[in-house]
Amino acid sequence: MSNKPTNPLASLQAMLDRKNSLDSEDFAAFMDKEDPLRRFRDRFQFPTLGSIPCETTGDQDSPCIYLCGNSLGLKPKQADVYMEEQLANWGEQGVFMHFNGRIPAALADQPGKEITASIVGAKSVSSVTIMNGLTVNLHLLMMAFYQPSGRKNKILIEDHAFPSDRYAVRSMLRMKGVGEEGMLMVKPRKGEETIRTEDILEMIDKNKDDIALVMLSGLQYYTGQKFEMDKISRAGKQAGCMVGWDLAHAVGNVELKLSEWGADFAVWCSYKYLNSGAGGIGGAFVHERHHGDMPPHLEGWWSNAQDTRFEMRDKVDPAIGADAFRLCNPPPWLAALNFASLEIFQEAGMEAILTKQFLITGYLEHLLTTRLSNHLKVITPKDTNHRGCQLSLVFNCDLNAVHHRIQSRGIICDVRYPNAMRIAPAPLYVSYCDVLQFVDILQEALEFCK
Amino acid sequence: MSNKPTNPLASLQAMLDRKNSLDSEDFAAFMDKEDPLRRFRDRFQFPTLGSIPCETTGDQDSPCIYLCGNSLGLKPKQADVYMEEQLANWGEQGVFMHFNGRIPAALADQPGKEITASIVGAKSVSSVTIMNGLTVNLHLLMMAFYQPSGRKNKILIEDHAFPSDRYAVRSMLRMKGVGEEGMLMVKPRKGEETIRTEDILEMIDKNKDDIALVMLSGLQYYTGQKFEMDKISRAGKQAGCMVGWDLAHAVGNVELKLSEWGADFAVWCSYKYLNSGAGGIGGAFVHERHHGDMPPHLEGWWSNAQDTRFEMRDKVDPAIGADAFRLCNPPPWLAALNFASLEIFQEAGMEAILTKQFLITGYLEHLLTTRLSNHLKVITPKDTNHRGCQLSLVFNCDLNAVHHRIQSRGIICDVRYPNAMRIAPAPLYVSYCDVLQFVDILQEALEFCK
Ligand SMILES: Cc1ncc(COP(=O)(O)O)c(C=O)c1O
Ligand SMILES: Cc1ncc(COP(=O)(O)O)c(C=O)c1O
Repeated sequence: MSNKPTNPLASLQAMLDRKNSLDSEDFAAFMDKEDPLRRFRDRFQFPTLGSIPCETTGDQDSPCIYLCGNSLGLKPKQADVYMEEQLANWGEQGVFMHFNGRIPAALADQPGKEITASIVGAKSVSSVTIMNGLTVNLHLLMMAFYQPSGRKNKILIEDHAFPSDRYAVRSMLRMKGVGEEGMLMVKPRKGEETIRTEDILEMIDKNKDDIALVMLSGLQYYTGQKFEMDKISRAGKQAGCMVGWDLAHAVGNVELKLSEWGADFAVWCSYKYLNSGAGGIGGAFVHERHHGDMPPHLEGWWSNAQDTRFEMRDKVDPAIGADAFRLCNPPPWLAALNFASLEIFQEAGMEAILTKQFLITGYLEHLLTTRLSNHLKVITPKDTNHRGCQLSLVFNCDLNAVHHRIQSRGIICDVRYPNAMRIAPAPLYVSYCDVLQFVDILQEALEFCK
Repeated sequence: MSNKPTNPLASLQAMLDRKNSLDSEDFAAFMDKEDPLRRFRDRFQFPTLGSIPCETTGDQDSPCIYLCGNSLGLKPKQADVYMEEQLANWGEQGVFMHFNGRIPAALADQPGKEITASIVGAKSVSSVTIMNGLTVNLHLLMMAFYQPSGRKNKILIEDHAFPSDRYAVRSMLRMKGVGEEGMLMVKPRKGEETIRTEDILEMIDKNKDDIALVMLSGLQYYTGQKFEMDKISRAGKQAGCMVGWDLAHAVGNVELKLSEWGADFAVWCSYKYLNSGAGGIGGAFVHERHHGDMPPHLEGWWSNAQDTRFEMRDKVDPAIGADAFRLCNPPPWLAALNFASLEIFQEAGMEAILTKQFLITGYLEHLLTTRLSNHLKVITPKDTNHRGCQLSLVFNCDLNAVHHRIQSRGIICDVRYPNAMRIAPAPLYVSYCDVLQFVDILQEALEFCK
């Protein structure tokens, strides 16, 4: 991270040399023209004003402004092609589909592994696997890496972790015979929205005799805060803990270097920034240091190495690395959707995605704070090292009417009642003009609903 | 079962009154004409001689004879329609797909539950859930229902259980701190192929102080033996054990009355007789007696009741019944494929499917044993109470060449080296003429390869 700019405004200002106002349509259009990722926008299908299930005003064929990629990413058009191929394979080949076709069903989780490994910063492709859903994977990995031992039996999580993670951790504690007091919670200081890294590090250090597992999200789903995964992973390992990450909102969104940081495991879903469709196939990372000597974990026939699986041995001949955590034969349908999206990531490159993310989120922040700060507050950190694509906005008014109004103009975004809006200008398909138009429409709605 | 005929030959003979030979093409055609399920054949897409990835001789457009539904069921044509709808929903609605469309993504596992409950014989729809893959579900359910306590800590399985089940049980024992000796194996008597019910019952009774969980497959994947689930479930409960069933080869194939039999749980996959596609969504049953007081189990946000899930409470407000075992948001893609198939089951009715299964498997058995008994032996029980659709054939010759030859004539079936063939005339789409033709082609190949 050392060499990277940390101030998007400075970078944007540099471009302004050739334009005259950051707020102008002209500037947004200019940024789009210069955008090295602009050709990817057309690789996604956009909902239109006429195709979404709400009343809208405006040209019914015009695309919506989609700022909800933190919830469900847009569909890569290629997803249709790969899915149709899978359906054709099934129909035309029956059981032969297991080992034939572009993405053979029985091997369907393999083609995406290399790109996935590079997205999460795994040193070895065998450190990642593509399987199941996120919470299933969280359990499978915790089952192995959460090893309570005497007093060192606690799990450190955030006070405001996504409910599924809290439920998962609580039920895992119960299953391993540890009481509710096994949940150690870190939270923001009074009056603050986000958690300070120093407080997390101190919590780990102070409780190193009690913490068995540090299990945080890479990027907080509500505030948009990106945790300093490098520092926290290192501190966790130094304190003799296992370290696991829920990367639901981080994968495909921010830079990840899991191997380098030394995390023991990570899990993620693919339906947000990875654009792989609702309920899409999840993923998991297991650090290389464990590959030679995996902790006891749950097994099934897919834990077995591919080349000896059908010998149907009495005992598992384990697959190398994270694949040993697989249990079932993979669903080619989900793997095909996932692969259609991963190809775009490979082509675009995480580097370019991160660069545009830095700029476009900064642009959004600039417009919101200069034009609408009497209506809303951005609770996501200003420091770009502590955030990704998403900005979380808290309003001082009833959001219901505002949300309704902007939706009728074709803005698709996420609202968390009572008064928070999460806006994610996903770099692969959101344009600078989208962002400007969103702010214009939001401003109009805020004034209208006053 | 009491009132049902147990001798398919007698039933077939009765029909023969109007025909003159069970072996004639005439008779097969007559049976197809009389088949109340014949209209369903056209609801499935058949691989053709030209569309499978092998060299074949014959009209390249003619459908294959598909006898492999015990491995991967054929594609219901409606699967294309529902999948296309899901893809369109995603593209046209983005995140709105979660709660809109014919099968809303966030509720995608619900529409199939009623039909599924009736297929497995669940008294209450809430006793079944549709989720994950089979081995994942087996672990989630064993995690809850396998409760080793002192000496009563063993799991009874078959010696020849499907590898995934053996691997799952062994890793579960390890996870719960029980040694390898926790696997108690029941097997066929010396010189016999299948396991006697009396031996299973005796094993349970003799070891009732040691067995915590009885975990067998409903229908043995290799021999085709259907276990007497009613007697075994009752014996297991009487011995104070938990009883769980792997119904991979039983669901959609044989009569199931899980609630009545009193099994504690069951799990299954949907890609075999349920025709829901490779890696299709699995299912699980939890007996009503547990709904009021579920054993501790792993949880996620989908364990929460639907109507309060998005309140994102601190503690889980559990869904009723088996749904409480869900962890992740469901993949609508897999649920849509599953639903396309379940609709056919609902329309056809399990009763009619079982009736045809009884007849067509008996017909296959008759042709094989009268014409080919010098080449092969059927190891599947003759007693129709102890089998479903599949017949497992053991040959006294090298099957490689034979398999190759029949495949080139458009027969798709499963071979387990060295010398076993599993033949499943799935009643929804296999015709009597298919069966006759299969036996003709097999006979020709056996004579040719001699
Ligand atoms: C009897 C039995 N159990 C378990 C499995 C494993 O299934 P899955 O890969 O869906 O977990 C199979 C697969 O064919 C099976 O036949
Ligand atoms: C941070 C986080 N963790 C876990 C989950 C649960 O995901 P799944 O339903 O895929 O298990 C989500 C879902 O949005 C999430 O945002």
